[in-house]
Amino acid sequence: MNSRSLLAIDWGTSSLRGAWLDARGHVVEERAFPRGILTVSPETFPRVFQECFGDWMARPSALCLMSGMVGSQQGWQQAPYCPCPAGFDQIAANLSWVEPGRLAIVPGLRWDHAGIPGHEQLAHIPDVMRGEETQVFGALRLLGLSDAQLVLPGTHSKWVRVRQGAITSFSTWMTGEVYALLRQNSILARSMPASPADEAFHPDAFSQGIALARQQGSLLSTAFSTRTLSLFERLPSAVLPSYLSGLVIGEELRAQVFENTNSVIIIGSEALTQRYQSALSQYGVTARCVGAAATWTGLWAIAQTVFPTLTTASS
Amino acid sequence: MNSRSLLAIDWGTSSLRGAWLDARGHVVEERAFPRGILTVSPETFPRVFQECFGDWMARPSALCLMSGMVGSQQGWQQAPYCPCPAGFDQIAANLSWVEPGRLAIVPGLRWDHAGIPGHEQLAHIPDVMRGEETQVFGALRLLGLSDAQLVLPGTHSKWVRVRQGAITSFSTWMTGEVYALLRQNSILARSMPASPADEAFHPDAFSQGIALARQQGSLLSTAFSTRTLSLFERLPSAVLPSYLSGLVIGEELRAQVFENTNSVIIIGSEALTQRYQSALSQYGVTARCVGAAATWTGLWAIAQTVFPTLTTASS
Repeated sequence: MNSRSLLAIDWGTSSLRGAWLDARGHVVEERAFPRGILTVSPETFPRVFQECFGDWMARPSALCLMSGMVGSQQGWQQAPYCPCPAGFDQIAANLSWVEPGRLAIVPGLRWDHAGIPGHEQLAHIPDVMRGEETQVFGALRLLGLSDAQLVLPGTHSKWVRVRQGAITSFSTWMTGEVYALLRQNSILARSMPASPADEAFHPDAFSQGIALARQQGSLLSTAFSTRTLSLFERLPSAVLPSYLSGLVIGEELRAQVFENTNSVIIIGSEALTQRYQSALSQYGVTARCVGAAATWTGLWAIAQTVFPTLTTASS
Repeated sequence: MNSRSLLAIDWGTSSLRGAWLDARGHVVEERAFPRGILTVSPETFPRVFQECFGDWMARPSALCLMSGMVGSQQGWQQAPYCPCPAGFDQIAANLSWVEPGRLAIVPGLRWDHAGIPGHEQLAHIPDVMRGEETQVFGALRLLGLSDAQLVLPGTHSKWVRVRQGAITSFSTWMTGEVYALLRQNSILARSMPASPADEAFHPDAFSQGIALARQQGSLLSTAFSTRTLSLFERLPSAVLPSYLSGLVIGEELRAQVFENTNSVIIIGSEALTQRYQSALSQYGVTARCVGAAATWTGLWAIAQTVFPTLTTASS
């Protein structure tokens, strides 16, 4: 037997999570810390890592793979973006090793959108992700797919296309952030309940927001209906946050091209994936949801590519 | 001679402006005060008005017309929205008199957009304006037009259609507010100069933003390019606010249907009207600009409809 323990780490902007996986890739133990990279000064990454996961790394033959913003300019060590299309082989070849053979950072991905024809600087518009690529590879492994259209909803949602096991293109949508700004900082906030924390989700109002976004042209205009529908007492204040959420997510969905109405994979927390699943159903699109396990499975799958012997015990 | 002096008042959310017009509608004197309706408690409107304009109102036969948020729920006296289509006759018939024959508030307008078919509450989506209707009527009078497509750029831009002297429809765009939120409160702010006050306008970057917004589908996605173009050093930090402004205004323009490429009227401050004029030129649309004088001319034109004898002196 030649198995190694895998320490899988998701080190993002605001949180640090880790899992110790057995030789079959199953989670043995998980830990989470409020030590996102924004809380760590450049020279203290090794110490924070040691404090949180030193005991796991002390195990014989331990291997650690990290994904997320830990590989950014503000992270532990920069892992340059890997261009698309990118599959396991490209990721494995572009790992950024902190300790050769023992501790590595998974590179983020880059994709160039078509930009403005004739503009030298802007003929292509770069797009980037860090961490989501690992979740995508995990979801593909969990679902046994090598072709898919995926969405990772969040502050900055990602829409991702996969062909023959490689991410071929993706795009970023500031959906969650724009919702939060409109909900809390815009004139629309005056029509809504004061505390975002208290609000319940109202599926009917959400669905109405999705439907209106599908009919009309731009969030810049539809968002104002949150105010006027309140002004004319067509919708009560309590449902307006759900309605606005529908308008913003609906704007994101309207811009997508669905290649197969039976194939969108949603990766994320239960609350958000359910919201997207419901929204997609209004477009006649069926979705399957994958939760946080995608990250661990993704790191496990990458580790298998790097060290084919990793899973000797389970094969 | 049967002429009356007109006191024209533009009383908005954050400012109070007034002009005394002679019997030909020419401005004799202007005043401005930092006394927007947000600074005035409900019962003190008469006192604030008296303090600011009491001497003018003491003149024989003085007539005062006010437009703007002074007619809203939070204003001096509510002037119910007048439905579109609305021309001078509808406005005149729906003035909200504070002192009959002497002091009145111009009603705002309402237009119902087509909404979600089959949804009882949302089959129509109401839209509203207060104050802009007066500027539109003023611009039409200044330019001698009775058919036009107009835009009033600002925190909440308005696009307005006029047929045979009546406003037939309009729409609201949260362009200025969304720009300010993205510029100051979003992740994009981190890539840009710290102080919005210091930034110069960069026409090339603005034009690039307009061009990209015209190519691609949604501000939720294009806005993120502000970050990535900075990350990959394609655009310097100093020009990013102008680029982002182009993206947001470009999103507004992309959604418009231009009925006549030689006819858009822009009403607003010089800085904003120039920006819109430049943006419209990228769509092959020629624009004419009208400044703040539109409000006084609009109130004068409404007063003429209410009191046809008002201009005896000049006719």
